Amino acid sequence: MNNFVYINEVGPRDGLQNQKKHLDVESRVKLIRSLAQAGIPGIEVGSFVSPKAVPAMVGAKEIIQALNDIEYCDLSVLVPNMKGYELAIEAGAKMIAVVPSATETMNQKNINMSLEDTINNSCEILEAAKNNCSTRAYVSVAWECPYEGIVNETHVISIAEKLLHAGANELIFADTIGAANPSSVKSLLSKCVSEFGATNISAHFHDTRALALANVCAALETGVRKFDACIGGLGGCPFAPGAAGNLATEDVCNMLEQMGFKTNIDLDDLNAIVDMCSSDFDLNLGGRMTPWLRKSN
Amino acid sequence: MNNFVYINEVGPRDGLQNQKKHLDVESRVKLIRSLAQAGIPGIEVGSFVSPKAVPAMVGAKEIIQALNDIEYCDLSVLVPNMKGYELAIEAGAKMIAVVPSATETMNQKNINMSLEDTINNSCEILEAAKNNCSTRAYVSVAWECPYEGIVNETHVISIAEKLLHAGANELIFADTIGAANPSSVKSLLSKCVSEFGATNISAHFHDTRALALANVCAALETGVRKFDACIGGLGGCPFAPGAAGNLATEDVCNMLEQMGFKTNIDLDDLNAIVDMCSSDFDLNLGGRMTPWLRKSN
Repeated sequence: MNNFVYINEVGPRDGLQNQKKHLDVESRVKLIRSLAQAGIPGIEVGSFVSPKAVPAMVGAKEIIQALNDIEYCDLSVLVPNMKGYELAIEAGAKMIAVVPSATETMNQKNINMSLEDTINNSCEILEAAKNNCSTRAYVSVAWECPYEGIVNETHVISIAEKLLHAGANELIFADTIGAANPSSVKSLLSKCVSEFGATNISAHFHDTRALALANVCAALETGVRKFDACIGGLGGCPFAPGAAGNLATEDVCNMLEQMGFKTNIDLDDLNAIVDMCSSDFDLNLGGRMTPWLRKSN
Repeated sequence: MNNFVYINEVGPRDGLQNQKKHLDVESRVKLIRSLAQAGIPGIEVGSFVSPKAVPAMVGAKEIIQALNDIEYCDLSVLVPNMKGYELAIEAGAKMIAVVPSATETMNQKNINMSLEDTINNSCEILEAAKNNCSTRAYVSVAWECPYEGIVNETHVISIAEKLLHAGANELIFADTIGAANPSSVKSLLSKCVSEFGATNISAHFHDTRALALANVCAALETGVRKFDACIGGLGGCPFAPGAAGNLATEDVCNMLEQMGFKTNIDLDDLNAIVDMCSSDFDLNLGGRMTPWLRKSN
């Protein structure tokens, strides 16, 4: 069993997009550099979404360009459509992510498109990206949708299959509203692992019901070794009622190290970044670990 | 695999003993009645410790007597020594708990006794109780001691064996400072289950590193089906530096129900009790679930 767990930090995108306080480009570049220096192997640095819809994400191009010297960390950007994809490539992005949702209503509410169009749109981007950059493909609301309830596993797997067939280098199953539990995580991901292999699979958990860490443990048992996490447990999703707080990077790294897994991430550095988010950036943090524990470590 | 999980509520003892605000006997009786009415099958209602050492626990006798009409719930009291045991029996207690720690230093710091004397003392109480009441025997700091670090599994099992031999009806392995992780939980408890069977084994987790729910999942996989939990995640241990926040009853019940286990506990009732602890009793709560989720359910 592989002992290394790959953490993809989504704080600079998923974490910051929903904060009342917006960080300028310079602050986000500083945050991302600190995260990369702490040893995090992958970071989602921003998204090419409409500045009107998500004003906190303005400046993705400038961020990519300010970080183009970083070689040791996979820096990805979210692209919502072909236009966003083209802007990302133009800016020099080496890795992009598409984020279709698994249900009709969620896609309608989130991006005003049908499920079919959303999947086709994502597949077109993945096809176009084949010779230009690496690709990550999310399946959002993979367990439960705030509008449609429990999502059918076979349906989720069939979407994942299409995305993989279109060229996705990695599939990320996302519990967008934090409604999955260790049993449902094990059920879906074990099927995904036997269908697609564990290497290309990642999971993205929210901590709404305090189950994110337990869900990571359940996913580890299926063989999955890649997880999204978010410094300070920042975040939520502005378009998903019920989404609150991502899995905190410092919480999951601490758990993994205690369990004997390796992350290559420096926990002291992480804790210093959490403090920086709280003090310098005045962000509203959501991590679960007793704060004095972070400080005394 | 047995689908029913037995929750033993320790809020009125472990939860309240460390709060700045002390609840009077009447308030504690009100809290315990509400918990029993919510369907919780076991409640630790107090302890016969020195009122000087733990002033919040004054009135254990009055509490037992005020609750002597309750038949459908196992009400237990902690007894630190033979004197406490005798007072408990005199008061009419039907179930007592002894709480020896697994390490020399923890016993010295906690109750000023050697490890050997503590175990002998606990065994004497268990022997004396055989014809008088049911008994629960904890092994505190079963995974890690704040003074001695990681605790040897064979050592923990040998203590458990002595307690069982002396007549303990139930063994509770306690992660007193919240330092266990899902791997170490699975390791110790799977050995305990194969040694003693799952029926008599329970686990007590603290949430210091946000791992209590993940640790419950790990314990469930070993076959353990009994857990201590604490309404509102109250608590900690006044004598154990590093102990902070018990596993919250509402969090674990929500997780178990979502996973398809049965607890017989009414989640709406539990949430109302959490609100009561916060508003009427002005207690400092530590549960992990997003508060609005509790309210909207």
